[in-house]
Amino acid sequence: MSEQGVRDAAVRARQAAVELAVASRAAKDAALHAMADALVSRRDEILAANESDVDGARAAGTGSAMLDRLALTASRIDGMADGLRQVAGLPDPVGEVVRGSTLRNGLELRQIRVPFGVVGIIYEGRPNVTADAAGLTLKSGNAVLLRGSSSARHSNAAIVAVLRDALTAAGLPADAIALLPGESRDEVTHLMHARGLVDVLIPRGGADLIRTVVEGSTVPVIETGVGNCHVYVDAAADVEMARDIIVNAKTQRPSVCNAAETLLVHADLADAALPVLLPALAAAGVTVHGDDTVAAQGKELNVPVEPAGERDWAQEYLSLDLAVAVVPSLDAALAHIRRYSSGHSEAIVTSSQAAARAFTARVDAAAVLVNASTRFTDGGEFGFGAEIGISTQKLHARGPMGLPELTSTKYVITGDGHIRG
Amino acid sequence: MSEQGVRDAAVRARQAAVELAVASRAAKDAALHAMADALVSRRDEILAANESDVDGARAAGTGSAMLDRLALTASRIDGMADGLRQVAGLPDPVGEVVRGSTLRNGLELRQIRVPFGVVGIIYEGRPNVTADAAGLTLKSGNAVLLRGSSSARHSNAAIVAVLRDALTAAGLPADAIALLPGESRDEVTHLMHARGLVDVLIPRGGADLIRTVVEGSTVPVIETGVGNCHVYVDAAADVEMARDIIVNAKTQRPSVCNAAETLLVHADLADAALPVLLPALAAAGVTVHGDDTVAAQGKELNVPVEPAGERDWAQEYLSLDLAVAVVPSLDAALAHIRRYSSGHSEAIVTSSQAAARAFTARVDAAAVLVNASTRFTDGGEFGFGAEIGISTQKLHARGPMGLPELTSTKYVITGDGHIRG
Repeated sequence: MSEQGVRDAAVRARQAAVELAVASRAAKDAALHAMADALVSRRDEILAANESDVDGARAAGTGSAMLDRLALTASRIDGMADGLRQVAGLPDPVGEVVRGSTLRNGLELRQIRVPFGVVGIIYEGRPNVTADAAGLTLKSGNAVLLRGSSSARHSNAAIVAVLRDALTAAGLPADAIALLPGESRDEVTHLMHARGLVDVLIPRGGADLIRTVVEGSTVPVIETGVGNCHVYVDAAADVEMARDIIVNAKTQRPSVCNAAETLLVHADLADAALPVLLPALAAAGVTVHGDDTVAAQGKELNVPVEPAGERDWAQEYLSLDLAVAVVPSLDAALAHIRRYSSGHSEAIVTSSQAAARAFTARVDAAAVLVNASTRFTDGGEFGFGAEIGISTQKLHARGPMGLPELTSTKYVITGDGHIRG
Repeated sequence: MSEQGVRDAAVRARQAAVELAVASRAAKDAALHAMADALVSRRDEILAANESDVDGARAAGTGSAMLDRLALTASRIDGMADGLRQVAGLPDPVGEVVRGSTLRNGLELRQIRVPFGVVGIIYEGRPNVTADAAGLTLKSGNAVLLRGSSSARHSNAAIVAVLRDALTAAGLPADAIALLPGESRDEVTHLMHARGLVDVLIPRGGADLIRTVVEGSTVPVIETGVGNCHVYVDAAADVEMARDIIVNAKTQRPSVCNAAETLLVHADLADAALPVLLPALAAAGVTVHGDDTVAAQGKELNVPVEPAGERDWAQEYLSLDLAVAVVPSLDAALAHIRRYSSGHSEAIVTSSQAAARAFTARVDAAAVLVNASTRFTDGGEFGFGAEIGISTQKLHARGPMGLPELTSTKYVITGDGHIRG
């Protein structure tokens, strides 16, 4: 799609956003249910489109893991529909009075949640993101411009066609949900430069995509997702608790951003802890990349340890690999984390109240966990109902982003002829 | 200052920010009082530095209005000190629990306000901004990199030297307040590219400066200040109230961003309202730029009206000029505002509850005022104690920004060995 095409789509989305901003919760929820029903009733159409994407990807030599992510089934489509119905059940963030007061001069001040307007979402991989993102943006009163990966473009087009028809049937503007066709990389660039037409961009995907958008966009961006997460086992830790937490944080789902990538162990506990931790990690299929102390322990325990270097501390493995270091103190652990953390999720295992307090105060990350797995940093786990992503930046939203994080606010000031003296 | 110089200053500020983030309110308030005292006791030093800036500006042919903005006096320095003491009296935003709950599995979740880290502020004109910005960032636990205009560089350097000495004496790191010397434009560019070292940039100044920073920065930016503000007089308005509000909004301080720039009058009230509004504006020294209807009325009333065109609707005059148009309906007023508003402050004068409700719901701006002057959009008027600027963007902060808007949040999650199933 040309730059003009992207801008035209954004202008239509802006017009739709004007109506959507004042749509009632009832109207939005009815539309979400209509969208869910339509996905189910037009499943065959979506599956047929998906088949051509999968065929194309297979012909291009795509690996089986990626093919699995791309493939839709009847039950995956039902899952998308269920997701939309769940969003319909969440409270509407729009109109919430965030704060309010009556000023000394009698002016009434209210800060009220309002939609952003037009949200752009750039994502890779799974076509179910298309429906998820459309549902969350609709409920928060925003029009959305979706730009999925070109490998899923037939699936995405089929899903968006179904959703737009459902919007029209429900009496809301179809242009509230629009798909950029995924014809070329340039679409992403055009979207990044649509300042004034698009209010915020949310990239979801790998580190390269996110860096490109963050560095090149003139539209404000909410950065999501990269997680080089640490688990620090303090001198005063329960070793079995530490073992359960690091194994869970590393292995429960290694490919996601809140999985642990580095284990730091206080030197005072290393002799007691490593003989428990290293075999447990090995038994769970984890490849340990360790510093010299860890390597020596591994040798004694007959657990293979790869030598770890700068790259290991800095890396988000997203696999069953784990960097392990012994640190001389809590301060050294804090310094290591300050140097290598991506600011996502950092955990301490400790029975010391002082250590917990220092760690939570001093670690600069979206989520700091005490005696809990990093895997808990998640909108669903936090009780937000659904999330559009996990922000690792400090502006606007930090951590899991639910519906309120998809809104801005405005002040409404009411007087009876007030003028300023 | 070279790119490396700017990056080095940012690295030192980051180190200071680590300490500042955990400084107690008592320590920060003591430092603010020490800074205030030092400004007063070292007034002569600051005045001498300011004299060389004023001499330089005069030699460069700077106009008298700008010279007045640049010049410091003993009482202006006392005002800066008072500002710092006032900030010491405001609540500390850091550590505030924004929300919290205990999850079903017993995990305790707390969302806590934390400093950004390093804030960059790029500003023009008055040297008192140096002390104001340093006080607000210190109180919110942030280190600050200040980049003032080169015309005020001796004044700014003297002020910052005093503030840094006071910080050291108060036991806080001097590098929490740093000044880029203002030697060249390149410093601004280097600051804009210090992503990862600087957490947020706030430009304060004219539209050109703000556009440059917003479009060129890879560091996240909070956009401030441009205000093309409208006052809409509805069909059901009290004409005297409308007169008082538009005269106040236009003339009480025409050079600021919350001054009104365009008056829209509902056609049904035009015959009754314009004979009151136009002479009152003329009497207050306002030059009216009107559409054909307004021009015709002006002729009858013997009030001079300049012809208004596209440029007048789009312009932020910042002077005693006002664009005036008659609109056929509330919807037409909304469409005009949607087209030309900079999203700062928009006011309606009406006695109709339905019109007020439609206007506040449909206008997309940081502040929407009903029967009140646009001049009320101000941190001081809102009761925030002090403001760092007025955000006209939708991300993070919108409207007057006080201390809480200079913070981010983090989640602290506490368990007793919780792992995810």
